Amino acid sequence: MTGWWTTDETHDPARTSWVASAQGHADFPIQNLPYGVFSPAGGNARIGTAIGDMILDLAACADAGLIGEGGDRLLLPTLNALMAMPVDARRSLRRAISMLLSDPAMQGAVEPHLYTACDCTLHLPAQIGDYSDFYVGIHHATNVGRQFRPDNPLLPNYKYVPIGYHGRASSIRPSGQPLLRPCGQRKAPDADAPVYGPSVRLDYELEMGVWIGQGNEQGAPIAIHDAADHIAGFCLLNDWSARDLQAWEYQPLGPFLSKSFHSTISPWVVTAEAMAPFRIAQPARPDGDPAPLPYLADADDQAHGALSVMLSVYLLSAAMRDAGMAPMRLSQGPASNLYWTVQQIVTHQASNGCNMMPGDLLGTGTISAPTRDGFGSLLELSVGGKEPVSLPTGETRAFLADGDEIILQAVAQADGFVPIGFGECRAQVLPARA
Amino acid sequence: MTGWWTTDETHDPARTSWVASAQGHADFPIQNLPYGVFSPAGGNARIGTAIGDMILDLAACADAGLIGEGGDRLLLPTLNALMAMPVDARRSLRRAISMLLSDPAMQGAVEPHLYTACDCTLHLPAQIGDYSDFYVGIHHATNVGRQFRPDNPLLPNYKYVPIGYHGRASSIRPSGQPLLRPCGQRKAPDADAPVYGPSVRLDYELEMGVWIGQGNEQGAPIAIHDAADHIAGFCLLNDWSARDLQAWEYQPLGPFLSKSFHSTISPWVVTAEAMAPFRIAQPARPDGDPAPLPYLADADDQAHGALSVMLSVYLLSAAMRDAGMAPMRLSQGPASNLYWTVQQIVTHQASNGCNMMPGDLLGTGTISAPTRDGFGSLLELSVGGKEPVSLPTGETRAFLADGDEIILQAVAQADGFVPIGFGECRAQVLPARA
Repeated sequence: MTGWWTTDETHDPARTSWVASAQGHADFPIQNLPYGVFSPAGGNARIGTAIGDMILDLAACADAGLIGEGGDRLLLPTLNALMAMPVDARRSLRRAISMLLSDPAMQGAVEPHLYTACDCTLHLPAQIGDYSDFYVGIHHATNVGRQFRPDNPLLPNYKYVPIGYHGRASSIRPSGQPLLRPCGQRKAPDADAPVYGPSVRLDYELEMGVWIGQGNEQGAPIAIHDAADHIAGFCLLNDWSARDLQAWEYQPLGPFLSKSFHSTISPWVVTAEAMAPFRIAQPARPDGDPAPLPYLADADDQAHGALSVMLSVYLLSAAMRDAGMAPMRLSQGPASNLYWTVQQIVTHQASNGCNMMPGDLLGTGTISAPTRDGFGSLLELSVGGKEPVSLPTGETRAFLADGDEIILQAVAQADGFVPIGFGECRAQVLPARA
Repeated sequence: MTGWWTTDETHDPARTSWVASAQGHADFPIQNLPYGVFSPAGGNARIGTAIGDMILDLAACADAGLIGEGGDRLLLPTLNALMAMPVDARRSLRRAISMLLSDPAMQGAVEPHLYTACDCTLHLPAQIGDYSDFYVGIHHATNVGRQFRPDNPLLPNYKYVPIGYHGRASSIRPSGQPLLRPCGQRKAPDADAPVYGPSVRLDYELEMGVWIGQGNEQGAPIAIHDAADHIAGFCLLNDWSARDLQAWEYQPLGPFLSKSFHSTISPWVVTAEAMAPFRIAQPARPDGDPAPLPYLADADDQAHGALSVMLSVYLLSAAMRDAGMAPMRLSQGPASNLYWTVQQIVTHQASNGCNMMPGDLLGTGTISAPTRDGFGSLLELSVGGKEPVSLPTGETRAFLADGDEIILQAVAQADGFVPIGFGECRAQVLPARA
């Protein structure tokens, strides 16, 4: 079943909301309706949806009997149970919520449950059981590999295996929470021994996150044709990386403390249902590349499995902030630069029988474009630190400075449909703990 | 504070239990008192302790008012809240339980809450938030490294960094649950391309697991002198590994699907308190090895931070089982073959500010002795498959066959104290899913 690739009345560009700020909203028109967990000022955490500049308290709507089937899953403080719903039930719930916010006859009953978004606190949307991070942005993998192996940047397994590794779930935080510069071991190339101290090569990574919906039993892989039905939605993910810690620690078992200090996600779950209009064909592989092995190959996935999403990264330094400057865009590029579809990632992760659970999070890996204006990390933009980026203040950045804020943005777009955004994924770097 | 390195009356070798089978029990004399989660036949999961051949229902004891402070944490279906208790409270609870099971005057009140262990089902003891696996068995790392780099088996970071990586929490299972042989990509050295199918180089790994007790806030590392107070207890861990999948997938981000299909743990948490008599000095580093960096160096940790635990691995093939044979011991060796103490592992994991939570699990990595009789994996015993192990049936094993059962055992021992065991960590390999 791939029902959520089909659009319905909730995607109709003519549909408007009685919430005035929704019309033309960059992120949250009525065609989006992402799920999240929020607290109004002084209130408890609850499930809501973003609509324009407002948040609708879906728990209160369910409690008031305004939502039929699935409403009980809105009364919980995380989205895990909602994510676990079958695709048909998720689509029904979306239609019900879209009706509440578009039908003028519902305004009287629903409006008391709206909150001004900027007065609310957003939380992690789900209890994340396991977090895995992939490496399927092929231009990023090529750029990074070239710094180590100029003649042979991609390893032999890259075009067969959606490369990934386990990440740290406990330190994932929602947008807006600052991160402390991490400490760790680093060793200069010409030093005899490593030292322990604050990272001097702190970087960001532009990624998308994939939220798992229905899980799978241990020992029961997910067929590629069914993988889309196991995806609940998407977010932005900043996989903060301490490159000096990473270079010293990563052999032979991969990145560990260079990543696990903090990861930032956009807190709204842009649902798989909302993304139906923005499904596009996976770009053809370059001539000479091997075809995916059969367990990763599906005609529907190749025809509709990629995402039409434009991704951007902005930087705001402390000096820029003090000078009242706007954030500077560091890069922009499309999600179609992923070598594998998100469905292939899901199927690969379960292909050994590993069980996934609702609320698990998969990162795509850094998404870079082939050219410098779309590089998704400072490691790439500064060529390993050798060519620092210039800021409008005259400052330069080989890697991040304390006070820097990184802002990720994403917009899904397609002809004939209203574009929808992911909301901000931003966080500021604070100095290392004394 | 390192209070749990101190013994008290609960460790007195003269203390006996009115539960007759506890006296001289190989695993569970009254000096052990591990925590676990069990279900009696037809009953719900609850917290208990193993005593001889019996399990005491601690939830029922708490409910009956037999336990004072800390009793409320025994009423839950996992040990996470119990693990989160401060060290002093954990020690008080242990004294209370030891008294219930040793004082003949308590027998009448307590005996109704005992169950025969073999009639009960044991569950995972905690909800495991994050699972990390380390690689600090230096002889294992040397043996494996030698297969790739005969002249230089250990990488330059090994003696500075307690090497580790994130593992998969969702697929950890308690002893007794069989595992399916995993499928995945493997590539023969002389093949042009990989194939997807059942692993043909399935292996076990002998490890100890470390249960995290009190956690730490994100951004707040754990000083090495305090690390012991963040450890709730220990278990056995079999880190099942598909060597063919691992060899093909692991570069550059480390092991992933070669491990995530299934990991087996012994379900009883042998508490840090119970292990107090079995703390020994960390063996001196060989001449020429660097000293630990200051954040990992502590005199108390070096003097008392290692564990006097003897570890054994047994194999029982289907043919051996059919012939009524006993399992064959594959190896035996002490936990003191770890290059870093478990406290150093904990401190390192938090050294970048990564937050740990009660119920997180850390694996030590495979513990091998310097000589073949103590090698902790078939990869080492069979020298990468080239020298298969002979079984008493005349069968040979380069790697595991379907029907094989691997049994890990551990005994903590010290002069003047009653030895305590960890209980079994066993699981059988079933054929790959058709």
